[in-house]
Amino acid sequence: MTTTITRRSFLAGSVLLSIEGTLLAQQPAPTSAGVADPALIENLVAAYRILAQQGVLDGFGHVSARHNRAANRFIMSRSLAPELVTAADLIEFDFEGNPVDAKGRALYSERFIHGEIYRARPDVRAVVHNHAPSLIPFSVTTVPLRPMYHMASFIGNGVPIFDIRKSFGMTDMLVSDSAKGKALAQVLADKNCVLMRGHGVAVVGPTIQHAVGRSIYLEVNARVQSQAMALGGNITYLDPQEAQKMMDAGENRGYERPWELWKAKATGK
Amino acid sequence: MTTTITRRSFLAGSVLLSIEGTLLAQQPAPTSAGVADPALIENLVAAYRILAQQGVLDGFGHVSARHNRAANRFIMSRSLAPELVTAADLIEFDFEGNPVDAKGRALYSERFIHGEIYRARPDVRAVVHNHAPSLIPFSVTTVPLRPMYHMASFIGNGVPIFDIRKSFGMTDMLVSDSAKGKALAQVLADKNCVLMRGHGVAVVGPTIQHAVGRSIYLEVNARVQSQAMALGGNITYLDPQEAQKMMDAGENRGYERPWELWKAKATGK
Amino acid sequence: MTTTITRRSFLAGSVLLSIEGTLLAQQPAPTSAGVADPALIENLVAAYRILAQQGVLDGFGHVSARHNRAANRFIMSRSLAPELVTAADLIEFDFEGNPVDAKGRALYSERFIHGEIYRARPDVRAVVHNHAPSLIPFSVTTVPLRPMYHMASFIGNGVPIFDIRKSFGMTDMLVSDSAKGKALAQVLADKNCVLMRGHGVAVVGPTIQHAVGRSIYLEVNARVQSQAMALGGNITYLDPQEAQKMMDAGENRGYERPWELWKAKATGK
Amino acid sequence: MTTTITRRSFLAGSVLLSIEGTLLAQQPAPTSAGVADPALIENLVAAYRILAQQGVLDGFGHVSARHNRAANRFIMSRSLAPELVTAADLIEFDFEGNPVDAKGRALYSERFIHGEIYRARPDVRAVVHNHAPSLIPFSVTTVPLRPMYHMASFIGNGVPIFDIRKSFGMTDMLVSDSAKGKALAQVLADKNCVLMRGHGVAVVGPTIQHAVGRSIYLEVNARVQSQAMALGGNITYLDPQEAQKMMDAGENRGYERPWELWKAKATGK
Repeated sequence: MTTTITRRSFLAGSVLLSIEGTLLAQQPAPTSAGVADPALIENLVAAYRILAQQGVLDGFGHVSARHNRAANRFIMSRSLAPELVTAADLIEFDFEGNPVDAKGRALYSERFIHGEIYRARPDVRAVVHNHAPSLIPFSVTTVPLRPMYHMASFIGNGVPIFDIRKSFGMTDMLVSDSAKGKALAQVLADKNCVLMRGHGVAVVGPTIQHAVGRSIYLEVNARVQSQAMALGGNITYLDPQEAQKMMDAGENRGYERPWELWKAKATGK
Repeated sequence: MTTTITRRSFLAGSVLLSIEGTLLAQQPAPTSAGVADPALIENLVAAYRILAQQGVLDGFGHVSARHNRAANRFIMSRSLAPELVTAADLIEFDFEGNPVDAKGRALYSERFIHGEIYRARPDVRAVVHNHAPSLIPFSVTTVPLRPMYHMASFIGNGVPIFDIRKSFGMTDMLVSDSAKGKALAQVLADKNCVLMRGHGVAVVGPTIQHAVGRSIYLEVNARVQSQAMALGGNITYLDPQEAQKMMDAGENRGYERPWELWKAKATGK
Repeated sequence: MTTTITRRSFLAGSVLLSIEGTLLAQQPAPTSAGVADPALIENLVAAYRILAQQGVLDGFGHVSARHNRAANRFIMSRSLAPELVTAADLIEFDFEGNPVDAKGRALYSERFIHGEIYRARPDVRAVVHNHAPSLIPFSVTTVPLRPMYHMASFIGNGVPIFDIRKSFGMTDMLVSDSAKGKALAQVLADKNCVLMRGHGVAVVGPTIQHAVGRSIYLEVNARVQSQAMALGGNITYLDPQEAQKMMDAGENRGYERPWELWKAKATGK
Repeated sequence: MTTTITRRSFLAGSVLLSIEGTLLAQQPAPTSAGVADPALIENLVAAYRILAQQGVLDGFGHVSARHNRAANRFIMSRSLAPELVTAADLIEFDFEGNPVDAKGRALYSERFIHGEIYRARPDVRAVVHNHAPSLIPFSVTTVPLRPMYHMASFIGNGVPIFDIRKSFGMTDMLVSDSAKGKALAQVLADKNCVLMRGHGVAVVGPTIQHAVGRSIYLEVNARVQSQAMALGGNITYLDPQEAQKMMDAGENRGYERPWELWKAKATGK
């Protein structure tokens, strides 16, 4: 099977980027931060599969984790449907989206979402980008996505919307370079999620478990809000103070309890 | 994997509770009521798995049963995702939520929902706490959840809503101590379910089968009501007298028919 | 496991009915029409399982078929969750709901739905009773269920609603005797489906395949109509003439194409 | 199992069509364009199964591909539920819907949808006809289906609706002859999809992957739009220029990434 980005001959120690058909100048590949923690790799692979099983990711979308040995490196899969990702598909990147060693494999064109968020947010150690259908309505409407219940305390401080049209005019909607990634990260600011108008969402967290758990419950919260609003009554949303107290008490207990289940189901371990 | 509640060294015959990081005074552990009926244990384990398979529980929520040998003891799992629960995970508690012997394992922080309901309601022998997404809208809106069809006769006398904010102000939303459990039980009063605003529901029953069956059909009823209201016509709800006659005739025939199916699917037996 | 209807000692050649705890006079059991066509039995068992797999039946509801050897006998399962039904669970009944030989097994209390429809409608050879959640809203609202697309041509002549309250006042909602069955059959009249207010639906057909296929597409049509109405525009429903032409052309081609698939999936054959 | 179209004795080298019971004049069967590319056959079989697994097709609907050796021939299955299709079920047709060699097997009565689209649209190499429930509302309402997010760029130039009633009056709703197929193709014009009022949709593409991918995301887009409109706010739809830029950039990257996953799941390869 051919890949969407033209396969290039592998040039050891250099990067010849061919994105959307544009041949870029060759530049030295970034150096590796070294072998990542095996537990990090295992959890990152599980994250791809969990999010597919939970219906948050389909054939598109991706997850990344900051490298445990270097704050300026992150790890994500080569261009591949999430449910198929294995440890062998993971590649190390710098903030500019340059791979340490892609081994000729195609890359996600939106890896700049990840790189620029890691650059802007030192507290973030994992990023999910997904197109969950129940979230798209909130990305295109004037009705804000709000926390309906305790599982969504992580959006108690709001969910900003990044409209790529505001800064970049008419585009192909993709965050496919560093400039667009930076603009997205700026709208994300200090929040945990940023909706992308007519596209999807980026969700961040201090651990892979948080980014995955937030992605799952953000999707549930969107469904709950849609259904609550359809009932036509007055709604009591989670108060920002309530949300903050839940975050202080340990947001959803670090997602440890569901993570054990999700991982067991996704990896058969 | 570490647990959300700090593991404590096991102190035989005593309880050193460490909840949400607060070290409580050591007190004698409650005595056991003795070995529970194996059928009760089997059904309780099945209940966890059934509710996960039916989409009522996800990685959170829990089920308990009153001990068959002592009215002031109940049994529930250690802190664990419902789908993973086995008989070895079950622990005996007193009404104050003190475990007879936790063997150093983490406990559900909301076990006080169960303890205080058992204390207030001698007729109750099983309790389910869940966050089913279709119920959350009815916990936050001014539109009351009402019985749409014969399968929901158990809410013919109403579904009260417990808003933790009314008695406890801004909290982390969790019923994590006896005072909050008592307040919840007070709102439940003599009903079969109590919605918890921005959180979920507690469902009770005279048997495990009733608490499980009610949890499943309460979720279905919420979806049915949402869809019926969206149609925009006038709705004929189940009359309280009709609901009462169904309860008198044997509410959903004791859930025996679906229980046989649910248990077979959940346990492979 | 005990059954909801008290087990009675088996009295060869007679029927001692114990329904809802009322002991009825002993009467001779109806005679059997003889061994039914094995293909009929196979399709009837498949029907139970298909409707469970397709989400039309859950732990409740039932299917029956008129006996191929006698117009005044029908066959349905003993009281059992549909997904568990095998040929050994099938029992022959007369129109009054008397079993030829129940072998002491509990019976569906709503078998009178079937008996009275077979009596009133000589053209009917199969009946399904289900509580599909998407249908319940249309049973309780003033908004009529209407055919949205060609797969629902069988409701082109309307879907009446049976409100048990009109003739029987406050009841337990169940069609648990011949009088209620007759009233239901009267409202069904010459149609293919009759909604039961706050309860479910009865669907009939000239073959098991028709009754099953109609049950499946009636459920889909209800969802489609709910979604279409929520869009808020003007809707073009299937014209009664269009529906009639589809019926004349061979309603959904006798459901042969999906039946082959449904049966293969439900029975592993 | 008998087939819906009467089996006819096989007449080598000729076609004796019996459609809806009408015996047509015998005419010479079209000549074959030769053995098709095995990869095309493999992908076409996969397409049937993928669309069933993804919930776009149920027991009805079909997919076809233009023959790689002749622009005036296309390949589709005999009349069969999509999930059961294998390579042995594929038959070659001319634009008039005549099979090269049906081997006595029943044919899809709506194969004229495919033939007439291939005739009118030389750029089209694959056609899907489906009845996905979430699309039906948009086929019957005055509310137009519009692109909500980047995955639906292929409808940026609009989705026309074919109402068979406008040209053919009261019918059985089926596109069961060339005249109706031509009328449908005329409404499709140069677009990628055409809704069929009260029936379903036809989706076309330059490859099987495109026709399948578009079918899947068209269904998702319909759900997203329904949910967005139900929220009641103002919606920012994808701008036609944005959609065009996405198409120019390579619509969903040729669906290669999800295709690899879908095919693996559908065929076990």
